[in-house]
Amino acid sequence: MRKLILYISCSLDGFIAKPGDDLSFLSMVQKEGEDYGYSGFVKTVDTVIVGRRTYDWVVGQGYNFPHSDKESYILTRKEIPAQGNLRFYNGDIKTLVNNLKRKRGKNIFCDGDAKVVNELLKHNLIDEIILSIVPILLGSGIRLFKEQQIEKKLTFISSKAYETGLVQLHYKRINSKK
Amino acid sequence: MRKLILYISCSLDGFIAKPGDDLSFLSMVQKEGEDYGYSGFVKTVDTVIVGRRTYDWVVGQGYNFPHSDKESYILTRKEIPAQGNLRFYNGDIKTLVNNLKRKRGKNIFCDGDAKVVNELLKHNLIDEIILSIVPILLGSGIRLFKEQQIEKKLTFISSKAYETGLVQLHYKRINSKK
Repeated sequence: MRKLILYISCSLDGFIAKPGDDLSFLSMVQKEGEDYGYSGFVKTVDTVIVGRRTYDWVVGQGYNFPHSDKESYILTRKEIPAQGNLRFYNGDIKTLVNNLKRKRGKNIFCDGDAKVVNELLKHNLIDEIILSIVPILLGSGIRLFKEQQIEKKLTFISSKAYETGLVQLHYKRINSKK
Repeated sequence: MRKLILYISCSLDGFIAKPGDDLSFLSMVQKEGEDYGYSGFVKTVDTVIVGRRTYDWVVGQGYNFPHSDKESYILTRKEIPAQGNLRFYNGDIKTLVNNLKRKRGKNIFCDGDAKVVNELLKHNLIDEIILSIVPILLGSGIRLFKEQQIEKKLTFISSKAYETGLVQLHYKRINSKK
């Protein structure tokens, strides 16, 4: 079965952005020729789930949406017609993910935002977490992990430390297939 | 100069305890003969700073305070007379730490709790962080890192993954002496 994988970075104190969706802290780990396994990872996925906030941020910054070659679901409360591979989805997240997992294909990538991540966690839909920890304490901003009424043990797969001080941790859900 | 070192563990989502000061999740990484470097670490310190909440919890569980062989400062708002090596301190935390750092001796160990950790971080008094990440999402409880008006870049020193899935991350404050 296809897996849903969260691939994301945060500060040591667990923030994915400073207030105002400020991602400038990521520049401290930017290094020519080092993508922390990202290009290899995206080859293993063909479907992307992303929150509207992240999508709007990317487009608002003047970037092209980076996953337009993939089947992409942008989670939103509004009804918005599809644009090519981009589907704006305002239905039940559990139904979406379970339907996607039943289809054939490569893995599914959750590219944020925190709201979507926490919805997925709440429904126990995330199979693997690849978390890159940036060596900084941000102090405030958007927390990756909100308070939840869940407790989930994870199976540790691997960790890798990079020269820039970024540490990438890889876990899978207990009982999820490797 | 002596360093103040935070040596602590938390869940992947950044909680040091479940609600009700419940530390039972730590049992998932308990393993005969594996102390994750703790006994080596405590030999490098001769002074301990700990919050009253942690102290009360330890004593309330029927344990002896584990650092009674060291110069220990239990931070509290109340005036309580010293008991042997245990000093109950209700003064300014910055003054205490700066005075301790000016004295000769081994390093200083901050053994929690979250309140003390965040006070120390706020005043930029922590020189090194040794954080053991337990492979679990707790979902709720006491967060290690509170919201702060600080941002601090760290220098990554090392990481080590253990067979139990615990990953220990070691950072130092930028500009702090190794």
